[in-house]
Amino acid sequence: MNLILFDTNDIRADATVDATGVQARHLITVLKVTPGQQVRIGVIDGSTGVGTVTSIGDGRVTMDCAFEADPPERPRVDLLLALPRPKVMRRLWAQLSALGVGQVILTNASKVERDYFDTHLLEPNGYRPLLLEGLQQARDTRVPVVSVHKQFRKLIEADLDGLFPEGRRLVADPNGQGSIADTLGRSTERVLLAVGPEGGWNNFELSLLQAHRFTPVTMGTRTLATTTACIALLALVHHRG
Amino acid sequence: MNLILFDTNDIRADATVDATGVQARHLITVLKVTPGQQVRIGVIDGSTGVGTVTSIGDGRVTMDCAFEADPPERPRVDLLLALPRPKVMRRLWAQLSALGVGQVILTNASKVERDYFDTHLLEPNGYRPLLLEGLQQARDTRVPVVSVHKQFRKLIEADLDGLFPEGRRLVADPNGQGSIADTLGRSTERVLLAVGPEGGWNNFELSLLQAHRFTPVTMGTRTLATTTACIALLALVHHRG
Repeated sequence: MNLILFDTNDIRADATVDATGVQARHLITVLKVTPGQQVRIGVIDGSTGVGTVTSIGDGRVTMDCAFEADPPERPRVDLLLALPRPKVMRRLWAQLSALGVGQVILTNASKVERDYFDTHLLEPNGYRPLLLEGLQQARDTRVPVVSVHKQFRKLIEADLDGLFPEGRRLVADPNGQGSIADTLGRSTERVLLAVGPEGGWNNFELSLLQAHRFTPVTMGTRTLATTTACIALLALVHHRG
Repeated sequence: MNLILFDTNDIRADATVDATGVQARHLITVLKVTPGQQVRIGVIDGSTGVGTVTSIGDGRVTMDCAFEADPPERPRVDLLLALPRPKVMRRLWAQLSALGVGQVILTNASKVERDYFDTHLLEPNGYRPLLLEGLQQARDTRVPVVSVHKQFRKLIEADLDGLFPEGRRLVADPNGQGSIADTLGRSTERVLLAVGPEGGWNNFELSLLQAHRFTPVTMGTRTLATTTACIALLALVHHRG
């Protein structure tokens, strides 16, 4: 926890806040804070700042807050991901928000098992704590916007232009020609990156994506598991050029 | 399993091989092979090729093997990693060999707990099956060479020139100046990438690394967990330029 995130409602009018629960335990047992000490804090979807500890006790750490004027910029990369199995998705949430994504668009695909959708990890109560965990790791405040789509074709043909109106669309494809660096160059446009299921997109899906402005990009011939592929591809998009 | 790896001793003189155990189960229940079908195979630290199924039965799949002349090239990236806690290390092994690393040099550091070394995951019997899992995912045959060092200073001052005599040495450092792309440019030199513990290298460690030809590189201000950082950094080194 490199930043302690609070909900905007947690901050009182006199700019004080109480950390409780896991956050208080982290401050007391890991950071071993004492009165007067300063720690990095943030408001969910708001600014970062500094909290000065004023009192500690009874599982509660009270701080005075001072926030910077501008919230961090929303990450300029979005992810369209064929839903992986729940065990993989559980670990992925925090890694995605730590790396920085503006939105996560989860979709069905022919090689996605239908019962992958029957998990509480696709409900806000399931994924939001994991997204906040990644933000607190990476010192960001911007919670990725999540949407879940059970119909791939409807998503691509009807909904996607609303979700991602402008920017570059890329689809990771082992048979693609260009690298991410060569395809994007020094462009600073917003990027939507599509990552398929473990068995890959089928031909229909790949054609539909290409018909809707997705350019195939490749990381070479190594076939990677979903988690590894997502992290590697997002790193390459973020740090292009 | 996108490639079935065999030990060189498994291949009989008449170029036939029996898949048993997990591999046979994968061939029979996932790939649903039938006689005459071809699957990708490889010899550990040797060539890749094609296996043609000749018979199936009793938890055993027999194949005729045809191998290509040249084994894949050893990945041109090595990793020097401050040992993470066993739970993290267990998941990392397969991800590292899937991404492709020539060698994994594990080291102690001031922020590494001593008892992290007390795990069977640092013995060949512990990590080798996990490395093979990643290779079979990525269709590679080259098992990363692993060494474990409990004395950081001795490793850097005495042993490292033997382990990594030539090439570029980089250390990931949030306070570094250059990006990996800018630091490496289009160089095709072998790269050794050093990744610190969750709490970072201390000043002594960072100075010692820099005194031994490690250039600090940065991925920006986001602080990432070990697994995410390793995957992202290795992707950037592999796909530089």
